[in-house]
Amino acid sequence: MQFTINRSAFIKALNYVNRAISSRASMPILTHIKMVVEETGITLTGSDTDISIETTIEKTDDSANLQIQEIGAIALPATFFTNIVKRLPGEEMTLTQTTGFQAKINSGSAEFDINGQDANNYPHLPEITIKNQLILPADTLVEVIRQTIDSVSKQLSQPILTGVHFVLASGNLTAVATDRHRLAQRTLNFGESDVEADIVVPGDSLKQLVGMLEEVETVEIRVAENQIIFQLGANTLFYSRLLEGNYPDASRLIPTEKRTTLTINARELAQTIDRAALLSHEGRSNVIQFSISANSSMISSNSPEVGKVEEEIFAAETAGDEITISFNPDYMKDALRTFGDTEIQIGFKTPLDPFTLVPTNNAMNFIYLITPVRTY
Amino acid sequence: MQFTINRSAFIKALNYVNRAISSRASMPILTHIKMVVEETGITLTGSDTDISIETTIEKTDDSANLQIQEIGAIALPATFFTNIVKRLPGEEMTLTQTTGFQAKINSGSAEFDINGQDANNYPHLPEITIKNQLILPADTLVEVIRQTIDSVSKQLSQPILTGVHFVLASGNLTAVATDRHRLAQRTLNFGESDVEADIVVPGDSLKQLVGMLEEVETVEIRVAENQIIFQLGANTLFYSRLLEGNYPDASRLIPTEKRTTLTINARELAQTIDRAALLSHEGRSNVIQFSISANSSMISSNSPEVGKVEEEIFAAETAGDEITISFNPDYMKDALRTFGDTEIQIGFKTPLDPFTLVPTNNAMNFIYLITPVRTY
Repeated sequence: MQFTINRSAFIKALNYVNRAISSRASMPILTHIKMVVEETGITLTGSDTDISIETTIEKTDDSANLQIQEIGAIALPATFFTNIVKRLPGEEMTLTQTTGFQAKINSGSAEFDINGQDANNYPHLPEITIKNQLILPADTLVEVIRQTIDSVSKQLSQPILTGVHFVLASGNLTAVATDRHRLAQRTLNFGESDVEADIVVPGDSLKQLVGMLEEVETVEIRVAENQIIFQLGANTLFYSRLLEGNYPDASRLIPTEKRTTLTINARELAQTIDRAALLSHEGRSNVIQFSISANSSMISSNSPEVGKVEEEIFAAETAGDEITISFNPDYMKDALRTFGDTEIQIGFKTPLDPFTLVPTNNAMNFIYLITPVRTY
Repeated sequence: MQFTINRSAFIKALNYVNRAISSRASMPILTHIKMVVEETGITLTGSDTDISIETTIEKTDDSANLQIQEIGAIALPATFFTNIVKRLPGEEMTLTQTTGFQAKINSGSAEFDINGQDANNYPHLPEITIKNQLILPADTLVEVIRQTIDSVSKQLSQPILTGVHFVLASGNLTAVATDRHRLAQRTLNFGESDVEADIVVPGDSLKQLVGMLEEVETVEIRVAENQIIFQLGANTLFYSRLLEGNYPDASRLIPTEKRTTLTINARELAQTIDRAALLSHEGRSNVIQFSISANSSMISSNSPEVGKVEEEIFAAETAGDEITISFNPDYMKDALRTFGDTEIQIGFKTPLDPFTLVPTNNAMNFIYLITPVRTY
């Protein structure tokens, strides 16, 4: 096995597959990248068994300037090999398999010989039968992930909640995540389609995926029995396992009645919440209050051992009953961040019921729900 | 106590005194900033007993726009208070002492009340009798600190080596630091002066000081029995304790004989060492080799369990005997960084003797010495 390649193009491909590699790999070979050199190009694979990423650099890719002298396969230690490639002095590099599973790397005046492993010992990626297929703009999928990922549960006690629940039916996609303290639900229409699916994708997989989506235009999604595959561009496949089990029905958690509403710019409210959280984070209970009346609306927090804070907020509109409600500011900060610099409506029922945040321009599209904290 | 101040100017002063505040303070009040408001301005103090920093914002400072309504003093929790000031919504802020040791902070529509402590409980800064005084350009002192600080020992077993040894005599300043594996010595002439001193300043103090020196032109240095004071600009004093004990005589460690010399650009050599260190860091012993002969010079490293690396280096000049010498690449990286993009001469005696690095343009000014690793 021997090839010469443009180092920048190779680093880009290595960065992709490194996203699947965990330092706490279950098998030593999974700390390695598998490299298969064929007549047509090089395929790199990384995997932590939950996620697997495979990317191909084609011989026809001009930016890679790939010259294949001899085909073959090897597995090389992922982090160590990638760090070497990143620091080599030349614009190009040559990799040659030498005796056993050793690789010689030449670039400029530098020469490395590093120990690898037999590529045949690398586990095979899951063979899957595709049930459903769907093409989405990459930026839409990024938005859906960003809106829901914070609400994924970090507790392993109820594993199904560590993923985002995607339901595809009648041309609609609904994505829901909840950790039982808050819930985010995004709905979108992707045009006429008979694709149907009901799956839960691990939050950790989506976190890795989202960073790779930014570099492509569209993503092709294929769903199999217990796997999902995202194809990014022509040459990269992202495999993730699916979570097994029944996801709780989110729709019945979302309150339908609003007795008080507040319309406000999400970014301005976020700054006020940030300040109040400085105080609540220092105190024993991390709680702040919303007090809404016809005359004025306040954010406040009181931790006798530390001090207190009070700030008036300037809502575009308030309507309905007076209410004082306590909540965890960190959930609110996460929620407001997903809205960015837009106007939202916050809807309250009672101090004991979850309250909702929706964009004023399209309330059907996205809803964020936060459970209040009982303070009495 | 009550004053109104421009928030940016106040944040700058808070950032200064926070450099002296340790999260592992020996007394709870030392996690606080002492604030004294007088008719003429506000003085802020922070201390961890090793370092104390005092800065004054004068009423005459236009950028601070300071208005003093009532004099007084209070101690406020440093990190918490600073974070609040940084996040307040308004350009100005007002601080008012209320009942007991509470402070009310108003800015824009935000109002904080935070608990403080009695400023009278804050320890007094050391009263000192000045023995010597010296004015230096701040950038010169920054350079001296940067050149020596890496070589300060991190081991507490020989406390005197955790500082930099400064000797002032006959208009010359010599600064030396060594951790017994390497040594850095900088010499400079500061003009005719009868100032004499022989002191050891803790490395930790110099690390904090160096960040503050970048904002001033000159620094006035005063030495007392067991304290040093750096006055930065007109309004900031930086106190550090001095280390007690006799610093070892560095001059007898510096070899005078060079049997092999190599002249090379420090930055280019640093890149080669960085690459070789990738391999030595993975291996069991963190060692790389220099091999110098009339025909070629090489950097190499070999760790059978990981692999090996070899790279030719292109010296401007080599002279003297052939030599192969082993060393810790991390010491070499630190050394080369102090030289930057300049030409240096490396001088060797035998594979068992320390080797030296000096700038080719002024070899008298700065010398870095590295002890080799015995590999047999």
